[in-house]
Amino acid sequence: MKKEVAEQYREKAREMYKKANIVISPEESENIEIVELGLDDFEKIGLSIIIYVNTDYYCAKEMVLLPHQTCPEHTHKPMPEINYMGKQETFRCRYGKVYLYVEGDPADAPKCKAPEGYDPYFTVWHEIELNPGEQYTIAPNTLHWFQSGDEGAVISEFSTTSHDEYDIFTDDRINRLADFD
Amino acid sequence: MKKEVAEQYREKAREMYKKANIVISPEESENIEIVELGLDDFEKIGLSIIIYVNTDYYCAKEMVLLPHQTCPEHTHKPMPEINYMGKQETFRCRYGKVYLYVEGDPADAPKCKAPEGYDPYFTVWHEIELNPGEQYTIAPNTLHWFQSGDEGAVISEFSTTSHDEYDIFTDDRINRLADFD
Repeated sequence: MKKEVAEQYREKAREMYKKANIVISPEESENIEIVELGLDDFEKIGLSIIIYVNTDYYCAKEMVLLPHQTCPEHTHKPMPEINYMGKQETFRCRYGKVYLYVEGDPADAPKCKAPEGYDPYFTVWHEIELNPGEQYTIAPNTLHWFQSGDEGAVISEFSTTSHDEYDIFTDDRINRLADFD
Repeated sequence: MKKEVAEQYREKAREMYKKANIVISPEESENIEIVELGLDDFEKIGLSIIIYVNTDYYCAKEMVLLPHQTCPEHTHKPMPEINYMGKQETFRCRYGKVYLYVEGDPADAPKCKAPEGYDPYFTVWHEIELNPGEQYTIAPNTLHWFQSGDEGAVISEFSTTSHDEYDIFTDDRINRLADFD
């Protein structure tokens, strides 16, 4: 993805924070992380993140999904060598609607589809629908992915420490730390 | 404090969440914790809390201070027997304004005063002003207190696990778990 394109998506994320009435600092606004995952298919697959805080003990983020955007299936790697069991994380919907899929009984008629062309990389279909004020805690070492509805979504994440660079994606073409051209 | 009075303050907290455009669930709304600390002086000293999540690893709360309301000075007890170093916590102002006081160089002209009649119980005066979108992380085992400005404040707290029942208040008349009549 070109730097200029990333900046356009940053602006779209800012608009979503405004719609959700979530105030971010000028520095946070300037540094919104556009997670395009090396796929350069951002409107389908990707998300925007502000990390409010990530200490040795806990992490809080605010995430934006554009309408029908998908964060692809992944788990957070346990790292016993640093006494890290994998990430436990709570998603709380603040604005819009998000469908979260995790391991477990698959939905009979899931509300979402895998983004076109990516079917093989979406394998868990236990569905949780989150509207504003609703939340769900994902157990460590659980495959999960999520997709927003028509208005997109703003989601708070409360969790153990984030080590994003070690996320394990089902789609092994993904590069979590892909940079811009 | 009478149960009926607590319910009136719960309603005031709900109004603050509405002003801040923060959506809470019906169950959260019904169970807003009115922390009156056994002082029955709530408009001066106390706060309202919703605990979104409190796991063995992290905690997230949304807190309301009514205008000029004060959360009194306290620390969070380290408990080495359960490998708990005391609470590390990040306050993020979402609405209104909050003045946070912690250990360190005292402000020359602090913006807040101790609530009338409680002076001896406010001993730390290093001042941090937080407006919406601003945040501060309090190190474990640090005395702190906070007071809102003219509009009150809504504050997100991200932290290690909360063990509120073991909070240590400078004013030893306080009962953190005081119930209603």
